[in-house]
Amino acid sequence: MTQNSLEICFTPAAFEAHADSEAVVVIIDVLRATSSICTAFANGVREIIPVETVEEARAMKARGYLVAAERDGYVLDFADFGNSPFNFTPEKVKGRSVVYSTTNGTGIMKRASVCHDVVIGSWLNISVLCNWIAEQGRKVVIVCAGWKKRFSLEDAVCAGAMATRLLESGKFCTICDSVHAATDLWMMARTDLLGYMEKAAQRSRLRDKGLDDCIPYCHKFDVTDVIPVLRGGRLTTL
Amino acid sequence: MTQNSLEICFTPAAFEAHADSEAVVVIIDVLRATSSICTAFANGVREIIPVETVEEARAMKARGYLVAAERDGYVLDFADFGNSPFNFTPEKVKGRSVVYSTTNGTGIMKRASVCHDVVIGSWLNISVLCNWIAEQGRKVVIVCAGWKKRFSLEDAVCAGAMATRLLESGKFCTICDSVHAATDLWMMARTDLLGYMEKAAQRSRLRDKGLDDCIPYCHKFDVTDVIPVLRGGRLTTL
Repeated sequence: MTQNSLEICFTPAAFEAHADSEAVVVIIDVLRATSSICTAFANGVREIIPVETVEEARAMKARGYLVAAERDGYVLDFADFGNSPFNFTPEKVKGRSVVYSTTNGTGIMKRASVCHDVVIGSWLNISVLCNWIAEQGRKVVIVCAGWKKRFSLEDAVCAGAMATRLLESGKFCTICDSVHAATDLWMMARTDLLGYMEKAAQRSRLRDKGLDDCIPYCHKFDVTDVIPVLRGGRLTTL
Repeated sequence: MTQNSLEICFTPAAFEAHADSEAVVVIIDVLRATSSICTAFANGVREIIPVETVEEARAMKARGYLVAAERDGYVLDFADFGNSPFNFTPEKVKGRSVVYSTTNGTGIMKRASVCHDVVIGSWLNISVLCNWIAEQGRKVVIVCAGWKKRFSLEDAVCAGAMATRLLESGKFCTICDSVHAATDLWMMARTDLLGYMEKAAQRSRLRDKGLDDCIPYCHKFDVTDVIPVLRGGRLTTL
């Protein structure tokens, strides 16, 4: 059986070193963008339009869109709501188009769109996503959104869990050191995932702002079977 | 006691997110640039002039300098020798100025020179270096040279060992997830460091080229008490 290459990119700053027009890219931003996107589709959102800048988000609000937008955890003043998955309720999002802009998670999507497919990953959809990826017969690059171009523990551990499953499928091989590091971190974290995440900087940042109520939820496995995918600049589901 | 901040930058691609004009920067490129630089100073080199491009190295050769230069492990045709620490013998380097250009390790030095001090780290000088760093009373950023902007396991584990010692000194604190990841990787690797390094991509690349004879040496602790430092674009010792 031909094995496809598996890579992990720990920070968007290094994305161009991993980019490949033939690859499937998985974007992970556990706290909180990709957990929120999975939640929104589980709750029936029609599409999500990721925008990189505050100006774009503001312009889309003026055009009548429902807008979710935050920077450093804080809701932007013109936005309808921010970046907590608990904001994306069926009451708010079902059947709607939502414009979405976050500190780290949405900016990398546009850059990744040069690749074959861009899908959204989190703990919430990890099984359905890994099963789908394993069937694609393509190189896979898992991109951690991180925090302001830095490495984030919560994204790296989730990437490590995905990589472990993909390698166990026998369909992938790797010569990428990030994969070895992330799978080892997952091995250390797996027996007490939330306990391990206590040391994540983003965990502290969210706690300091009173925004950490969603952390246990964002580390739940297989809450949904949606796979958000970027097509023509918009997220829909496969 | 005031504690200073400790950070690790896993790839030069993310350096600007960590750069700080007040910080001491430690550059690590275990396989092989910073191991070779430490060896060269242990063997009496007078100074090392790191240059980023092949063209600069070639121009310096034309001006009569002794030149060590490689790309992807291969010695450049005009160079006197390449990037193995075994090239930097007392017979070749004692009392000399050496121009040095490598795939990953030398390019980051110029960018890091905006910081307060830039020092060169490896397993070969880990104890003397950590003791010196702990006395500086400054923020510290350990930069892994990596491989073509990617994460490298051998640099991350060495950074984790340094960070473990610095945190144990009680003089540092951290809110940097890379530090947590690297110290955990070091914890996994420490009982069998060379065995753990078997999975490093650079280990395979060097083996494929017959250049892996130096790997056990590059993972020896405390072979020397030199601390190479970048001053005015040249490496000398503290």
